[in-house]
Amino acid sequence: MKRIAILGISGSIGVQALEVIEANPSEFMLYGATVHRRVEMLEAIHKKHALTAVCLPKEHHQSFIEEEISLFDDLVKFVASLPEDVTLLNALVGSVGLASTIQAIEMGLDVLLANKESLVVGGEIIAEKLTQSSSKLIPIDSEHSALSQCLRGRSIDDVEKVVITASGGSFRDYSREQLATVTREEALKHPNWSMGEKITIDSATMMNKVFEVIEAHYLFGLPYEKIEAVCHRESVVHAIVYFKDGNIVAHIGPSDMRIPILSAMQGEKCLPYRSIFDITKAQPLHFEPIDSTRFPLFDLGVAVAKRKGLHTVTMNAANEIAVELFLAEKIRYLDIEHIIETCLDYFDHTNDLTLDKILAHDQAVRSYVKKLYLDGETHDSH
Amino acid sequence: MKRIAILGISGSIGVQALEVIEANPSEFMLYGATVHRRVEMLEAIHKKHALTAVCLPKEHHQSFIEEEISLFDDLVKFVASLPEDVTLLNALVGSVGLASTIQAIEMGLDVLLANKESLVVGGEIIAEKLTQSSSKLIPIDSEHSALSQCLRGRSIDDVEKVVITASGGSFRDYSREQLATVTREEALKHPNWSMGEKITIDSATMMNKVFEVIEAHYLFGLPYEKIEAVCHRESVVHAIVYFKDGNIVAHIGPSDMRIPILSAMQGEKCLPYRSIFDITKAQPLHFEPIDSTRFPLFDLGVAVAKRKGLHTVTMNAANEIAVELFLAEKIRYLDIEHIIETCLDYFDHTNDLTLDKILAHDQAVRSYVKKLYLDGETHDSH
Repeated sequence: MKRIAILGISGSIGVQALEVIEANPSEFMLYGATVHRRVEMLEAIHKKHALTAVCLPKEHHQSFIEEEISLFDDLVKFVASLPEDVTLLNALVGSVGLASTIQAIEMGLDVLLANKESLVVGGEIIAEKLTQSSSKLIPIDSEHSALSQCLRGRSIDDVEKVVITASGGSFRDYSREQLATVTREEALKHPNWSMGEKITIDSATMMNKVFEVIEAHYLFGLPYEKIEAVCHRESVVHAIVYFKDGNIVAHIGPSDMRIPILSAMQGEKCLPYRSIFDITKAQPLHFEPIDSTRFPLFDLGVAVAKRKGLHTVTMNAANEIAVELFLAEKIRYLDIEHIIETCLDYFDHTNDLTLDKILAHDQAVRSYVKKLYLDGETHDSH
Repeated sequence: MKRIAILGISGSIGVQALEVIEANPSEFMLYGATVHRRVEMLEAIHKKHALTAVCLPKEHHQSFIEEEISLFDDLVKFVASLPEDVTLLNALVGSVGLASTIQAIEMGLDVLLANKESLVVGGEIIAEKLTQSSSKLIPIDSEHSALSQCLRGRSIDDVEKVVITASGGSFRDYSREQLATVTREEALKHPNWSMGEKITIDSATMMNKVFEVIEAHYLFGLPYEKIEAVCHRESVVHAIVYFKDGNIVAHIGPSDMRIPILSAMQGEKCLPYRSIFDITKAQPLHFEPIDSTRFPLFDLGVAVAKRKGLHTVTMNAANEIAVELFLAEKIRYLDIEHIIETCLDYFDHTNDLTLDKILAHDQAVRSYVKKLYLDGETHDSH
């Protein structure tokens, strides 16, 4: 019986992870969970699963005060309380997930990682901590799970290159002119599936694909030159591995996150999961290069990633706040690009990489973007 | 250094296998080879590779009589002469390859198998002999090599089903009416690649795909219910494995037989092979069910395969002679189907399976088809 704690259980990945646990009651047990807002969901889950520990904002603790349960309001302290046989599933959104990932690795817990920003912002630190830990870092992101499957039975030294696919997002067929005036509502209409709001915008801007390139770099120890992304609007092929001996292996199938979640949870087992996928019913499959004229953030982001250090922290923080502002309808869609570029120009990236410095830099960038926006607002009010 | 003997070195697979050997001179050495007709090619190969043993028809032995070389005119005796560290690559075409495969397995040699008919005609015997041998039977056929690659790091028990793809062959867009009058020349124009004449006709009739289903059954120990074939005209995806945990892995890439040949030869190594494949330059990929109205041999053939015993011997022998007659322009294209059906009806399939009985039955079917044809010719002459 594998005991699992889920950070961010009320999000899209958290909910599906819970489904996978509930579908395999003899294999998995939910040990603990965290929420940020949806307290009633956590209460319902606790009723069903009798959790040992939960983490939620202090003002909601009264809902659990009469339960036999360990109550936390700090994610890192929650992680620090986990017994060493518990597997952590990090489904938080944003750089808030980094400290928990590092805490778990320092404790030797296995980490199932859906929180991309852990690696985007802290990849260098995590890679180093992993060398001193018994932790395994296992991807839940569909492209990286797909790569893991293609790499089974192979050494990473056999790899010529890997390719991850991009659906192209909500605006894959939009011109730059059209992009200038798109709305929040249009941006949230992903053509192939439904997922969280932040990642849907990141898919549209291709920033999500930049994050995935960075994740692949750290998860598999591949140089950036060996990681490519292509646009594949049908989203049937998730990732492709080119081996040096000429063999090319791809992971295909439905866009169903329960498959990568189960794959991460099961380890070496092969637990049954029935998905319906008939390739003769799929649309014809198309593959195109990512159009860097219409989606300049992809090339920019990969170039930033190669520079390492605090550069990706700036890019990620600027992007997070910019997306927040766009979702709040306070900036226009293409302002996301401008904000990221402005921050990359503005900040000094020469600091040493420690968790504290990353978090401080992250805050500095966020404050700067908010200030930029407020200034913008002031100007607008003239 | 792996020493390799190639049966049928002058054929399409044999020639490419020699290329792979010559491209990896520090890994592979050509120990011996056989030809049936192209004696001058064998002479040239011997000049370059200083073979230890060759097999060719007796009337051509004088070409080698002054060489320090072991000369054979019988394939099985040639195989029997091979030292135990030699790997046999069986690239013969037709059921003539069976006895050599069995001989090699009885001796414990590893067999790289391009001769489909070994398994089509002798699958049951080979499967049983393998349980008593240290031989490994390694596929060279592209679809089966592809399946092996998808299965790396996995147990066959994890497999939900496998799918092999069919290009659809020369007549994939022909109606039944059109098929009635097609010529030898039209049949030999494969839309996607060039290969031997026999296999090009077998691709057009879908008999080749039946053979591959049978091969997959014996190579991987999968029941027929778990083996499917789909039509995929772009031939970019070669095979797909559906795992029970919902993961689906496909082998993709160029139609280049040197990749499966190298994969079979290299064993656990990963030898470099540079192939150019850019998925963004591929045509859109289509997948359709095999049309059993236009290509009835597929369903018929798989049903025959499930009946085991001598049924597939009849089917294969009838097909071999029918294709020979079609290539000699002595019968029409759709007569291939009729001849196979007629033989399956005519013969008694209750005999025990021994190599001798298989070979005797094989001969009986061939004689019967030739007699049928001669009778037909007599009728025509009225």
